[in-house]
Amino acid sequence: MDIVTLLGLAVGLSLIIGAIILGGAVDVFINVPGMMIVIGGTLASILVAFPFEEIIQSFKAAFKMFVGRKSRTRDVVNIMVKVAEISRREGLIALENVQTENMVLKKSCQLIADNADPSLIRSTLSIEINSMRRRHQVAQDVFKRLASLAPAFGMMGTLIGLVQMLSQLDDPKSIGPAMAVAILTTFYGSAMSTLFFIPIAAKLKARTLQEQLHLEVIFEGAKSILENNNPRLVYEKLSSFLAPVERETQR
Amino acid sequence: MDIVTLLGLAVGLSLIIGAIILGGAVDVFINVPGMMIVIGGTLASILVAFPFEEIIQSFKAAFKMFVGRKSRTRDVVNIMVKVAEISRREGLIALENVQTENMVLKKSCQLIADNADPSLIRSTLSIEINSMRRRHQVAQDVFKRLASLAPAFGMMGTLIGLVQMLSQLDDPKSIGPAMAVAILTTFYGSAMSTLFFIPIAAKLKARTLQEQLHLEVIFEGAKSILENNNPRLVYEKLSSFLAPVERETQR
Amino acid sequence: MDIVTLLGLAVGLSLIIGAIILGGAVDVFINVPGMMIVIGGTLASILVAFPFEEIIQSFKAAFKMFVGRKSRTRDVVNIMVKVAEISRREGLIALENVQTENMVLKKSCQLIADNADPSLIRSTLSIEINSMRRRHQVAQDVFKRLASLAPAFGMMGTLIGLVQMLSQLDDPKSIGPAMAVAILTTFYGSAMSTLFFIPIAAKLKARTLQEQLHLEVIFEGAKSILENNNPRLVYEKLSSFLAPVERETQR
Amino acid sequence: MDIVTLLGLAVGLSLIIGAIILGGAVDVFINVPGMMIVIGGTLASILVAFPFEEIIQSFKAAFKMFVGRKSRTRDVVNIMVKVAEISRREGLIALENVQTENMVLKKSCQLIADNADPSLIRSTLSIEINSMRRRHQVAQDVFKRLASLAPAFGMMGTLIGLVQMLSQLDDPKSIGPAMAVAILTTFYGSAMSTLFFIPIAAKLKARTLQEQLHLEVIFEGAKSILENNNPRLVYEKLSSFLAPVERETQR
Amino acid sequence: MDIVTLLGLAVGLSLIIGAIILGGAVDVFINVPGMMIVIGGTLASILVAFPFEEIIQSFKAAFKMFVGRKSRTRDVVNIMVKVAEISRREGLIALENVQTENMVLKKSCQLIADNADPSLIRSTLSIEINSMRRRHQVAQDVFKRLASLAPAFGMMGTLIGLVQMLSQLDDPKSIGPAMAVAILTTFYGSAMSTLFFIPIAAKLKARTLQEQLHLEVIFEGAKSILENNNPRLVYEKLSSFLAPVERETQR
Repeated sequence: MDIVTLLGLAVGLSLIIGAIILGGAVDVFINVPGMMIVIGGTLASILVAFPFEEIIQSFKAAFKMFVGRKSRTRDVVNIMVKVAEISRREGLIALENVQTENMVLKKSCQLIADNADPSLIRSTLSIEINSMRRRHQVAQDVFKRLASLAPAFGMMGTLIGLVQMLSQLDDPKSIGPAMAVAILTTFYGSAMSTLFFIPIAAKLKARTLQEQLHLEVIFEGAKSILENNNPRLVYEKLSSFLAPVERETQR
Repeated sequence: MDIVTLLGLAVGLSLIIGAIILGGAVDVFINVPGMMIVIGGTLASILVAFPFEEIIQSFKAAFKMFVGRKSRTRDVVNIMVKVAEISRREGLIALENVQTENMVLKKSCQLIADNADPSLIRSTLSIEINSMRRRHQVAQDVFKRLASLAPAFGMMGTLIGLVQMLSQLDDPKSIGPAMAVAILTTFYGSAMSTLFFIPIAAKLKARTLQEQLHLEVIFEGAKSILENNNPRLVYEKLSSFLAPVERETQR
Repeated sequence: MDIVTLLGLAVGLSLIIGAIILGGAVDVFINVPGMMIVIGGTLASILVAFPFEEIIQSFKAAFKMFVGRKSRTRDVVNIMVKVAEISRREGLIALENVQTENMVLKKSCQLIADNADPSLIRSTLSIEINSMRRRHQVAQDVFKRLASLAPAFGMMGTLIGLVQMLSQLDDPKSIGPAMAVAILTTFYGSAMSTLFFIPIAAKLKARTLQEQLHLEVIFEGAKSILENNNPRLVYEKLSSFLAPVERETQR
Repeated sequence: MDIVTLLGLAVGLSLIIGAIILGGAVDVFINVPGMMIVIGGTLASILVAFPFEEIIQSFKAAFKMFVGRKSRTRDVVNIMVKVAEISRREGLIALENVQTENMVLKKSCQLIADNADPSLIRSTLSIEINSMRRRHQVAQDVFKRLASLAPAFGMMGTLIGLVQMLSQLDDPKSIGPAMAVAILTTFYGSAMSTLFFIPIAAKLKARTLQEQLHLEVIFEGAKSILENNNPRLVYEKLSSFLAPVERETQR
Repeated sequence: MDIVTLLGLAVGLSLIIGAIILGGAVDVFINVPGMMIVIGGTLASILVAFPFEEIIQSFKAAFKMFVGRKSRTRDVVNIMVKVAEISRREGLIALENVQTENMVLKKSCQLIADNADPSLIRSTLSIEINSMRRRHQVAQDVFKRLASLAPAFGMMGTLIGLVQMLSQLDDPKSIGPAMAVAILTTFYGSAMSTLFFIPIAAKLKARTLQEQLHLEVIFEGAKSILENNNPRLVYEKLSSFLAPVERETQR
């Protein structure tokens, strides 16, 4: 459970709602047709912009991001060192039994255990990494697109409102409230984009970079185990992936 | 037939039209000279910006996108595994008879059946992939350009309207309706871009990425078949292109 | 003569002028000092932004684009196949006499006829391709820069006009026309950019991509002729550069 | 201590505050709810957009940038030449005792002293360089994101203020001050971004490029020491990293 | 002395000043506090955004651009052909005496005269080229940043002015002039950016591309001299860097 992310969302939303409540009349900020244009239009357009499965996967990825357990690079390095120790002590064949949730680590261990050709391992793992990157990229793209569609529909709502207001300037008293309503959709679109879509797209990108880093650690680790099965050297190499403060002086 | 995409377009359009109807006077939103500037100007400029054949191809590609049958990565992987099985059972020469709509798959099978040099297969297929990517890129570029030209012509219409209105401020009562008309072209340009051109360009991009992925599956599959003709290994390698949930545990 | 491009320019311009005439007073759209700021300023700034020769070359390239003859990828492929046939029938040395306007094709034929080292041919042709790309890139950059400078000078004219108007708000009646004049320069800059500079930059880019594709066809063709002088195989390889519908089933 | 950077920050801030004081009423520029929306909202959203540790690291990196000692490329080149001299005079093994704060230089010396395989040294150092680049990139990304979030929250505050003002246009006298308050948040967001976030992101980028250059000097130097342990040749090669004026004519 | 560039700057400035003088009251365009915010703020922020030495170097580079002598690609090609002729007639050792201002050409000649390993020459020259590119890139980045900071400070000045004006709407007569003053800073920022910073950044980029091209000519020329010391072949290869019209039909 990613508390900090949820906290950020909650605080951002509270500040905006708080500013609205402080200003008095809350009801002027609620306009159902305006909400329909911005929320409905954004969702309709995203259905056109991406294949349906990719949209579903992206929302799942965003949800998983909030509830998922984060793994640190340090842990991945340690696991690879442990794998190197096992393979040294018990032979490469022992890697077949390594238990892990990480699909790529599992595949690597199997390939090493199968005594597969290093070039095969390399090409298989690089396909895995690119495949993972592609799937994650789509999720980011969906949220980036949502982040740009929401303000666009907001502005369209405002333009509709302005045209309607300007074409019937009978009562000067109605100008203010009519303009307020027109501006509201721009506010909706801007709030959806700034509070939700932009930060979520950014977090998805940060997560992708992290996962990709972990796959590279696994990739380099597997290569090292095959080339020179010495746990100390494996650690020496993989620790280069860590920030200097995270490294332990082994032995 | 891509129902979801059409649904998205229909819902987006309905929401905008609904908001206009809810506001009363629908006729103020119809201004033929304004439409001519935005639609006509956008089309005229796209004729300058791209060779004529490329524009025609792009609209065809967009149309094909709506009616075309989608193929899934999983299916392409299965086909390649089947091809590997055929080539193992009946020899590489049997691939000459593989029936498929996919030009690139067909070419690959012929080249393998011809026992062509692996480097020739590789270079031919990578030309095919780049060639496909180039053609698709043009279609995206055309729609991206349309998406940026439409609001530009919308703004030009608004500037013309504003200059006309401001230069004859005789009757204060006419300001409102004149300004409404001026703003209308910005609305037209914005609506065309947000409802149609931007999502279509995005969907074309998504499709391109998918087709490109399929060509890479074919490319890697053909390489595997040539190097080590073992259907199980071919599946092992190609399944790396799939999301973990899509993979089957074969045998 | 590229009729479609000229037509596009003419129609776009006519629509804008038509909208101005329809609105009545045409003379309010003509403001010589405003035109001088936008046109003069844009040209002056482009003189600072690029070396003089590059600007001249870019305008020449744009002009040539309108009057030049277009060659299709299909034709280039056929020429290369013909070159392959000649070289097979009459020997590589016969290529010395190939007559062509295309500098790069000519150079390739000479190098093949000279029996030059394949790596020399490769490096010479890739320098040619990069050199062509660089020259074309400059022309695009000049027009892209013009496309962004024109609206910038338009806005500066508007700011000057607004400051002048606001600092002497004596007569309320003069506000409208003064503001109309101020907005005019924004209109000039926007029209120059949207009607001319943006589409011309885009067309230059499209042409570059096409010429680059043709050079790549020549490059791959020359390589094929050297490696395996079989016209049928040359066609097989080069046809990968064509869209599926453009390919002929040879024999 | 980076005096110039601090001076730049101080002068920029003083000019803005000076302009506010010169204009008279300072208190109209202080609006606590507005500050809360912009500052609080920006911070809340950055918590969503990046993992918490990365945000902390980025602020640390920015702080370190102000107080850290800068090292010049020239110094790094000289150190590598000195290392080459030591290794020549006392043998590669002597490098084990080289004392330095630079983690990467230290690792290089150890690897050389261990007589490690050149390809191992190369791959270890390139992992180090990429790892450093990744960590620095995150810090830039955090400040770039802050630079775009702050004005976005500023505009949301203004939209809220405008809607509130327009929906209760009872007293014409209150329009001005209400609008001033509404515009204030846009000013806050713009000032935070322009005065702090944008320049800090830029300086972080400049620092990264510099550190990366230094790592490349170390990388090339280590390679030279291994290949051809001649201090003069090492200097010849590494001096190519320096601007011509910084090079000394050695001997 | 680059007359055209200076002319461009002068004409652009004259047109803007001319438009101001034509409009009457020149004094309304002079506002010292506004200038201080825009000019001072921009300079202060650039001090934060870049290391001090890099800013100094960038302004030097911009100054040198105006007064420096331009060399044409054609000349560089001819020099390399001459070098090839010397090295053929008098032996590689004769290159030690080649006199030239170009640091890289000099280094190349020395390395060739020293009969250095081709791979050493290649790596040294590519470090030189990257090093030059990095230094030039910084100068462009500084001016691009100035080009985006100036309008940002202009807008901040305008926001300050608007808040001040709106918070004291006592006298309707003062609105116009107060707003004129507020808008002035936007004009200052826009003018600085459009007239100076943007074109200078663009020219620096054009110069960089040109110098880089020259270094590539030297690089390819040096390689050709080492591989196959035939002046005619060297010209054949290097002439590929020139536009077709610039090539001479040698012999």
